[in-house]
Amino acid sequence: MPILIDIRKLTIIGKLIQHGAKNVADSLSTMANIDADIRIKSLSFVEPDDIPHEIGEGAFHHANIRLTEPPYGVFLMTFDDRTGEEIAHHMTGQPVEGELNQLQESALQEMCNILTSGFIDGIANTLETTINMETPTLEYDDAEVIAEETLSHIHSDSLSIVLDSVVDLQEENREFQLRIFLVPDPGAFVNLIDKLDIEEIREIDDLTARKDDDRAF
Amino acid sequence: MPILIDIRKLTIIGKLIQHGAKNVADSLSTMANIDADIRIKSLSFVEPDDIPHEIGEGAFHHANIRLTEPPYGVFLMTFDDRTGEEIAHHMTGQPVEGELNQLQESALQEMCNILTSGFIDGIANTLETTINMETPTLEYDDAEVIAEETLSHIHSDSLSIVLDSVVDLQEENREFQLRIFLVPDPGAFVNLIDKLDIEEIREIDDLTARKDDDRAF
Repeated sequence: MPILIDIRKLTIIGKLIQHGAKNVADSLSTMANIDADIRIKSLSFVEPDDIPHEIGEGAFHHANIRLTEPPYGVFLMTFDDRTGEEIAHHMTGQPVEGELNQLQESALQEMCNILTSGFIDGIANTLETTINMETPTLEYDDAEVIAEETLSHIHSDSLSIVLDSVVDLQEENREFQLRIFLVPDPGAFVNLIDKLDIEEIREIDDLTARKDDDRAF
Repeated sequence: MPILIDIRKLTIIGKLIQHGAKNVADSLSTMANIDADIRIKSLSFVEPDDIPHEIGEGAFHHANIRLTEPPYGVFLMTFDDRTGEEIAHHMTGQPVEGELNQLQESALQEMCNILTSGFIDGIANTLETTINMETPTLEYDDAEVIAEETLSHIHSDSLSIVLDSVVDLQEENREFQLRIFLVPDPGAFVNLIDKLDIEEIREIDDLTARKDDDRAF
């Protein structure tokens, strides 16, 4: 059965993501005292089957949560060893030598919590709703395993929104590269977007008054 | 009136764009003897009203064509002075000193023709159709003027697909940054996509056998 959306409402998906990213930046500032810009480098739509390929080759840090409220589905964040080491170093002030130590592990977990809740809350605010969620657990696995464990309950014809994002630390010349997968339930997602009016979203944009000249996704 | 598309078919838009970009690379190789990769750095959906902001501040080189066959609408390519000078330099071997000379102007025009026809043909091939078009004329104007002249006949509720793309020359350490706007007629565009089967697109993908590990949009 087709799940239909007005093609002109696709611009709303971009706005949602933009607001999610902005909220992550705000959360980093208030919760971790980190001044950062979040840039979404690319947005694409893929099928769940393509997700292992999208995650990449080898093993990755990953954190995922199942959304128990609309738009349901899964939020998954992945990043590689290098990004993990950079975040751990930045958060603890200790360079990573070999394995992460316990403090560094905790710091990485804390960063994941901030990024995940910031992003989901940002989307929820724009949708004028709340999306309750559990705290994500940070794990480390091969891309195939990540996809299998995270997405086993997802229908193979679901839509997956893939975001390449960069957390750009203002105080130093350092960037963290993250990949985010949003795999909502297609029906619930369309239902949420259908309720939104593009004019309402414009008003929210005016209120948040974009400070930079970044692309509006 | 809403123009409805099955949300799970959005993956096809990414495939179309990927095939368009691949065809540009092939055209550059065969028509201009330039070995280049084309990377689509970002894909976004915006409303036509946002296009001047998306083009940027100031004056830009631009080339546009109206499509007289489905998906109708407009194809617009923009790039800034620096990219213009780099292309002209690369194509003619003459560095740009102040204004472009006549040879450099012609080279820039030729590059626009190759990029435009390559992209549109790539999309048409994937759609298993042809899209006839005129030769684009390269011009130079302020972003507001470009948007006004190009899009004056476009409905304000049309969907605009914006692509940031990079032409990466293999033989030297040089990149050209281009921005591409596809503003199809929403109805005709949905109609075309509806006719496509995701399985058919997969088969085309298998045939073209992606050589690199780039993201599949």
